[in-house]
Amino acid sequence: MKKRIDGLKRRMEEKGFDVALLMYPRDVYYYAGTAQPCNLLVTLKEEPILFARRAWDFVQEEATLEDIRPGGSLKEIKKILHSFGVKGGVIGMEEDVLPARLYSKTAEFFEDFRCENISPLIMDQRMIKDLEEIELVKKSAGLFSHIHEVILNNLRPGITEVELATLIWVANRREGHEGLTAHRRWDGYLPGDGIVASGDNMWKISGYAMTVTGVGKSKALPWGSSDRVIQKGDLVMVDIAPSYQGYHGDIARTYVVGQADDRQKEVFGSLLKIMESVLSHIRAGIPVKELYHLAVKIAEEEGYGDYLQGYGSQKGEYIGHGLGLEVDEPPVVGPHADMLLQENMVLAIEPKIIIPQWGAVDLEDTLLVTKEGCEIFSPIDKQLFEV
Amino acid sequence: MKKRIDGLKRRMEEKGFDVALLMYPRDVYYYAGTAQPCNLLVTLKEEPILFARRAWDFVQEEATLEDIRPGGSLKEIKKILHSFGVKGGVIGMEEDVLPARLYSKTAEFFEDFRCENISPLIMDQRMIKDLEEIELVKKSAGLFSHIHEVILNNLRPGITEVELATLIWVANRREGHEGLTAHRRWDGYLPGDGIVASGDNMWKISGYAMTVTGVGKSKALPWGSSDRVIQKGDLVMVDIAPSYQGYHGDIARTYVVGQADDRQKEVFGSLLKIMESVLSHIRAGIPVKELYHLAVKIAEEEGYGDYLQGYGSQKGEYIGHGLGLEVDEPPVVGPHADMLLQENMVLAIEPKIIIPQWGAVDLEDTLLVTKEGCEIFSPIDKQLFEV
Repeated sequence: MKKRIDGLKRRMEEKGFDVALLMYPRDVYYYAGTAQPCNLLVTLKEEPILFARRAWDFVQEEATLEDIRPGGSLKEIKKILHSFGVKGGVIGMEEDVLPARLYSKTAEFFEDFRCENISPLIMDQRMIKDLEEIELVKKSAGLFSHIHEVILNNLRPGITEVELATLIWVANRREGHEGLTAHRRWDGYLPGDGIVASGDNMWKISGYAMTVTGVGKSKALPWGSSDRVIQKGDLVMVDIAPSYQGYHGDIARTYVVGQADDRQKEVFGSLLKIMESVLSHIRAGIPVKELYHLAVKIAEEEGYGDYLQGYGSQKGEYIGHGLGLEVDEPPVVGPHADMLLQENMVLAIEPKIIIPQWGAVDLEDTLLVTKEGCEIFSPIDKQLFEV
Repeated sequence: MKKRIDGLKRRMEEKGFDVALLMYPRDVYYYAGTAQPCNLLVTLKEEPILFARRAWDFVQEEATLEDIRPGGSLKEIKKILHSFGVKGGVIGMEEDVLPARLYSKTAEFFEDFRCENISPLIMDQRMIKDLEEIELVKKSAGLFSHIHEVILNNLRPGITEVELATLIWVANRREGHEGLTAHRRWDGYLPGDGIVASGDNMWKISGYAMTVTGVGKSKALPWGSSDRVIQKGDLVMVDIAPSYQGYHGDIARTYVVGQADDRQKEVFGSLLKIMESVLSHIRAGIPVKELYHLAVKIAEEEGYGDYLQGYGSQKGEYIGHGLGLEVDEPPVVGPHADMLLQENMVLAIEPKIIIPQWGAVDLEDTLLVTKEGCEIFSPIDKQLFEV
């Protein structure tokens, strides 16, 4: 973890931060090895200090930093900063995820400092994975082989979306899924067992993501699988992001109940062409946004430009995203990405064609960006599976 | 929903708010009937306006307010406020749950207004349930009869905590559980399938709650069921909060694998005495904190004062909590509760005795506070079940 702390310090120095005060468990886990409620204090010159707000027993066993202490009140932290000779400057906090009230209280207490959002620095660092992280993402993505087997064995006319989702959950949890898909957002409700959508639910895009969302069991949680009974001839999409020791894979496949009809085959053929073009274009050094523009170009050539990533006002400007300790990490692979693909980025690439009143086809793979191309972690073929 | 909006307006007037700008989906669902991403604008004199930030199709079908519109940019909202003659004053926002950056951006935009935290008003209103809400909580708590059946049929030496949790999940989802336990907090990670803890994991209190937490599958998510293999003689606790059409029940029971030994029986006997004393004391008009003090008193008389709700630095000062659209709503039934029990409050009462190196016993019931006492929604007995 020392390397990670050093990476943060280097970024802090470059961007003019004097102090980082991290409270968000995913970030603390990344830098300090524990997801317990802690405050992590990083300054440019001194060793980092991890304060356990609770669960001191756990923190002592888990934390990978040397200086760990119970407590961590703001008063205590200010005193330590003063003893370091740090009496002003810029304090970085995670403004994208800390609640406003906690943030304001903290900012008021550190009135001699200026508070700024440090999350972009953290996410910039977390975007490039180290070997240990890559192995865990691979393991997590590998869980989809069990998911796929459950689908092949159980997807039949008469089963409901929720029933299929729960069978997937059982296999997934048994094989290692931690039970949480962690989102770096405040309003991203999603049922634990991911998204199973079928038939008419394939093109109903609910509010929390520009994708095949499913409609959920009620309007109180309008996302994920529903009680819809799956019929012969239905398209069925399964999009699951299991976590393994903190790290996510994110994979989707589309199935047909029975034999695919001509249109289903044709639309899927176009989707596959988009997917394969994008995947074969990936390598370190390419502008991220090129992947998006390439997907749009192929979709247009195939005649599905209006339906790539949704339609009308529900059309998403992206073709993938980074992932790791959270399922939604930078970069967003879209037209506004202003960076190059880099070695050891982990991406989920997920083109989909969503046609209103008809349905949708979806493919999503989790992969590692390498110097020469990419290594795909998804353990199953890219087919329109007939079951 | 008109009544709910009127209730909010009355509270706003009393507390000096001119405008409420709500963005948090659980609150928007309460007042406007949709959990899609919306901004809800409430002023004292005009009708409320619901802006759909996305998923306009869904919002049109679901929303229960009359004035609904797509959009909802801050610019648009400010323009409308000006057209209402509201050009300054106090804007209420949900400062406990909105991320700092979103909040600051909004507060800066409304620079002629003062922003204040409106969540306490909302939660004060949501604390007292109406008939429709009460029915849904009852339905949700009723799901525990299926959970209990799964436990009786499957809890055997050799099964792991996670395996039992997933079997519970299957039944729970099939019978109506929406798949999410909604927490009004930013760091409360919990696996979807709730808490199953056994043996040594019964007294290991992980960081995110002062209760029997379980230890999870890895330190990346240190809460919920683990891969521990359950043994003969183990105490096993199951604490599940399913949601049904948005509303939660929260129930826990303790089981023994095989026959309970004398100490297990004795500790459980004391816990039952605490639980029954507290339940029989509940009725509208009683100070909330009396329930807590009563639990402490009985625990001390029974010789378990040091172990009620944990031990040492991991001891919780509470004996229960409100619940509804979220599983952690006011009041906290603890020594700092400064209010009286009121008719149509819904509470979870959850005494537990947690003894380090030994184990724990836990009982939790979901109930409705009535004029004369309470109506318990939990569908099963309060026993130490031998399976």
